[in-house]
Amino acid sequence: MSTDEKLECQCVSRRQVLIGSGVLAASTALMQFGGLLSSAQAKDGSSEKWPWPYVKLDPQKTAELAYQEWYRVFCGGAVISSVFSQLREKVGEPYKSFPVDSFICLEGGMVGWGTLCGSNAGANIASNVIIGPRIAGPECAHGHSIGSDIMQWYCDTPLPAFVPKEPKQPTKIIQTTSASPLCHISVGKWMAESGFALGSPERKDRCARVAASVAYQLVERLNAWKDGTYEPQSEWSPGKTHGIPGQPNCTECHGSDVPKPPMMTKKA
Amino acid sequence: MSTDEKLECQCVSRRQVLIGSGVLAASTALMQFGGLLSSAQAKDGSSEKWPWPYVKLDPQKTAELAYQEWYRVFCGGAVISSVFSQLREKVGEPYKSFPVDSFICLEGGMVGWGTLCGSNAGANIASNVIIGPRIAGPECAHGHSIGSDIMQWYCDTPLPAFVPKEPKQPTKIIQTTSASPLCHISVGKWMAESGFALGSPERKDRCARVAASVAYQLVERLNAWKDGTYEPQSEWSPGKTHGIPGQPNCTECHGSDVPKPPMMTKKA
Repeated sequence: MSTDEKLECQCVSRRQVLIGSGVLAASTALMQFGGLLSSAQAKDGSSEKWPWPYVKLDPQKTAELAYQEWYRVFCGGAVISSVFSQLREKVGEPYKSFPVDSFICLEGGMVGWGTLCGSNAGANIASNVIIGPRIAGPECAHGHSIGSDIMQWYCDTPLPAFVPKEPKQPTKIIQTTSASPLCHISVGKWMAESGFALGSPERKDRCARVAASVAYQLVERLNAWKDGTYEPQSEWSPGKTHGIPGQPNCTECHGSDVPKPPMMTKKA
Repeated sequence: MSTDEKLECQCVSRRQVLIGSGVLAASTALMQFGGLLSSAQAKDGSSEKWPWPYVKLDPQKTAELAYQEWYRVFCGGAVISSVFSQLREKVGEPYKSFPVDSFICLEGGMVGWGTLCGSNAGANIASNVIIGPRIAGPECAHGHSIGSDIMQWYCDTPLPAFVPKEPKQPTKIIQTTSASPLCHISVGKWMAESGFALGSPERKDRCARVAASVAYQLVERLNAWKDGTYEPQSEWSPGKTHGIPGQPNCTECHGSDVPKPPMMTKKA
């Protein structure tokens, strides 16, 4: 098989690609991300020592906090706040110095641009701030993999999965599966299926529950990591597997007309 | 005109939409984002007081730093590091306590998922951490608008715009215009036009220069904000203008078959 054929995008489904291409298990592949691993460069600040101290949290309580916080700092801020507010109390620094509220910017797929759902972004940031950057050593590898786990779970799961104890909206909030980690696709599918528009209280409560659902998943994985029992679950593979940065869920946007990743034409 | 007609996506081009729909100027519209402004909730930690102290930086020096840092912490981490490393020296706290390296997770459109280009994500995070969350008061509104400015500039500009003094790659790095803030679209267009593949040293240097280009733009705007002369430049409009979270650059992905934002069917 030629290099071109190997790299041709065969994105019928994520699982078909993975079964067919024999990529490495996510836990191994993630360590090879980008092929540019460099050694950690220690900094003087205590916040640059990883992992940060972590104590196990209650997923249910965390989800309830995220649900409430959505109405103050929206999706990404809510996911981070739900975890960090508890760790500020239980641990103190370096959590106290982390500017949680600034991450309101993750809302609406980054200041309303509709790209990556802020709940996914917030979960990735939280896991990588706590566990550390992958370049800080092998004990810091799982910030990345927990983030990837959650994005795949988000794509594959009918959301919102979490139901708050005291919902702000009495209306039944239906579940839809986004098949994408992007804000406007996830929100748009739910709007189309539910019949509620962007500005409705129901849509807002749906997004608050999605943030809570993601916070629940995040804490479950952080707790397992703390216990030493965490295993990466996503079918993550490095960009070089596909010839373009991305995971092989191309068809959700591209349909049956998935572009071939551009081939190397200038060098062999 | 009915509500449905008003909400129908008319995304021929961003400018056509804006000319036709009479949305408010970005500086005004941004203050209305989401329609859910709440009052700031002060926290005890010093990092939750905004704006953070800022001293004007040299855009050229910052871009050179970002270019170098890309080879250590990649796009999003490089943009944040290029600004925060200088402010750690010139200002000290709260910058010293900010865990810069964790933001390596922004690489490849968030841990290799190809979504929002990490340079854009890093710029938004930096501007919102420094200036503060929009809910912290009117003096903190421009973290959002600087982030949006940069995403629009990124979409509209032949990139990379910045040429380092001592390039790591001697090959000429061509410029391409992404018309999208997403990683895999921006990278893919450059790969198709340049003929260099994802794993090539040239593609890596291209992305390092893009991070540097974004860091340059970020510091120019932060300096203007510090001087009190900053004016939002992006044609940002709230999601309710379009009926879905996003800015009206739909055709880049959807072509001529732009879905209508789902209409409210359950409530008037």
